[in-house]
Amino acid sequence: MEASARSAASAALGVSPLARVAELMQTHLEEVESRIVQQAAAFDHEIEGYVTYSIGGRGKRLRPLLALLAGGATGEITSGHVDLAVIVELIHVATLVHDDIMDEAERRRAQPTVNARWGNSLSVLLGDCLFAHAMDLAARFENADVSRAIAQAAREICSGEMIQTQRRFDLQLQVEDYLRIVEKKTGSLFGAAAELAALISEADPNVIETFKKFGVQIGTAYQIYDDCLDIAGTESATGKTLGTDLRKGKFTLPVLIFLRSASEFERERSCQLVLEERIEEMTELLRAGATNGALNESIVVGSDMIRDAQTMLDGIALNSYADALFLLCDALREMFDRLRV
Amino acid sequence: MEASARSAASAALGVSPLARVAELMQTHLEEVESRIVQQAAAFDHEIEGYVTYSIGGRGKRLRPLLALLAGGATGEITSGHVDLAVIVELIHVATLVHDDIMDEAERRRAQPTVNARWGNSLSVLLGDCLFAHAMDLAARFENADVSRAIAQAAREICSGEMIQTQRRFDLQLQVEDYLRIVEKKTGSLFGAAAELAALISEADPNVIETFKKFGVQIGTAYQIYDDCLDIAGTESATGKTLGTDLRKGKFTLPVLIFLRSASEFERERSCQLVLEERIEEMTELLRAGATNGALNESIVVGSDMIRDAQTMLDGIALNSYADALFLLCDALREMFDRLRV
Repeated sequence: MEASARSAASAALGVSPLARVAELMQTHLEEVESRIVQQAAAFDHEIEGYVTYSIGGRGKRLRPLLALLAGGATGEITSGHVDLAVIVELIHVATLVHDDIMDEAERRRAQPTVNARWGNSLSVLLGDCLFAHAMDLAARFENADVSRAIAQAAREICSGEMIQTQRRFDLQLQVEDYLRIVEKKTGSLFGAAAELAALISEADPNVIETFKKFGVQIGTAYQIYDDCLDIAGTESATGKTLGTDLRKGKFTLPVLIFLRSASEFERERSCQLVLEERIEEMTELLRAGATNGALNESIVVGSDMIRDAQTMLDGIALNSYADALFLLCDALREMFDRLRV
Repeated sequence: MEASARSAASAALGVSPLARVAELMQTHLEEVESRIVQQAAAFDHEIEGYVTYSIGGRGKRLRPLLALLAGGATGEITSGHVDLAVIVELIHVATLVHDDIMDEAERRRAQPTVNARWGNSLSVLLGDCLFAHAMDLAARFENADVSRAIAQAAREICSGEMIQTQRRFDLQLQVEDYLRIVEKKTGSLFGAAAELAALISEADPNVIETFKKFGVQIGTAYQIYDDCLDIAGTESATGKTLGTDLRKGKFTLPVLIFLRSASEFERERSCQLVLEERIEEMTELLRAGATNGALNESIVVGSDMIRDAQTMLDGIALNSYADALFLLCDALREMFDRLRV
């Protein structure tokens, strides 16, 4: 089915795409969930509780979903794909634990963060532990490409975050710099999830490469979504501390697009607000009428990125999992649509 | 040669054991050094400088030395052993970068620490990057056992540190708990270095196992040395902030041995000093006449551990590298001797 025909078919059914994907994958996702919970038992009993707390938050499990769907789209979903799903989620959770230290975030998924509960030292170590354990699981695959791709993705995530940290409050940051940063910090792990799923299915090299690009693109778009949410969302709906990007001087896509076309007066006013940590006023400014353009333009950039990714799947795979992968993209685009102001 | 005969031969020559080991290994160590420096080029140009700074401190390179010597003792020193030496040092540097955040340490190897220079956020990420890069190097070995052992050692290091963090200011901590913690946090990586060196040499399984045990023992003893140094050393000689263990409520071997045999009055006085952060007074107390016993007893525990490790080598390997490994142990015991008060 062509991309447009698939979208039309999905829309015609009148059911939320994410709900349909989740239903199709329910059994596999439950297996991932129980295997994630089991991981805590691999740690010393003194620290098992911290591991359980950090991995138990029941996040969206988007990376596992991508690994499973890409696995199914390129073959049968095997135990190896479930392991891969666990590995990418553990790497993700490890980065969240460390991110929350750096952002001094208090809440995540409506729960106190690890750092809010047990302090920074323990959080640094817990993130390291989770990462090391994920690498141990990756090394259990016969094919060393799995370890390599996961380690490289982890390096990219941290590199992206380092560049972002280095360029905080940097008014010279361009949209292109931002896109490079988010591709590294989020695209890389989505890319590894999709690439390795195809590799585990023993797909052709060009199919593996396409899935990698697809994953990177989806991940990058998802980060754009998350960055828009930090400005356009509400804390009650998201369950996490918002406005942290601006507070930490991280200029994300809506801010950069706004600054790019802002008048001299608006630029100076914005810089003043950020530097004086008047984040709520700055957020209001970005959400308000005059600057709607920047937020909506960012939403279009992310949504178009996902549509492009959908076209990559044309002709690559033709089964219910490939369709579900397509639906997952629709679901992400719907999430973008709901952010429009 | 038997253990005692080897020690006698070494002593008779009247040259410092460490100097003789370093001389024998000079070419190999220089190769490791240049390969460590080259690693920075694998990172994005924006962050290369941080990587260079963190790995360039010219530490003692004890873990690389162990990997090289164990490699030579079990076969020929190959490029694989040099890679292993680089990997274990990168893992070590990654943990130092994170340790310095947690200890709020200002100086390391006579230089400002990464956190003192660029802040905690960047240090968290730099440690993660170095760790991920080391895992990437490990995954390049055909034999996935290398990745597995390195990932497991990394998990043990963090687990040991988490348990230590959890039990700060815990007056119920026993000498046995301490030994379990230091075996995890330092023994494990020394163990992996020696084990994998023998594995890369394709040694017999029992030889690989013996080298692992040897490494764990040497590493554990070395941590005891480092913990004694934190009390008995001087900042000018060591180039790092001392007294950090007590300041952070980490009760190390000399403290635990002292508390174990202290009178009720001494215990209460010590607890008061630590809780009131009167660290210099507590350090003075531990260095002073009345409590010499605890420091010296700790030195004996560590030194005996190394002597036991030396006996493990008897009959295992008979070449100049095995002799040098033996000399390295002598050098560590000499370092202990110099701490005696």
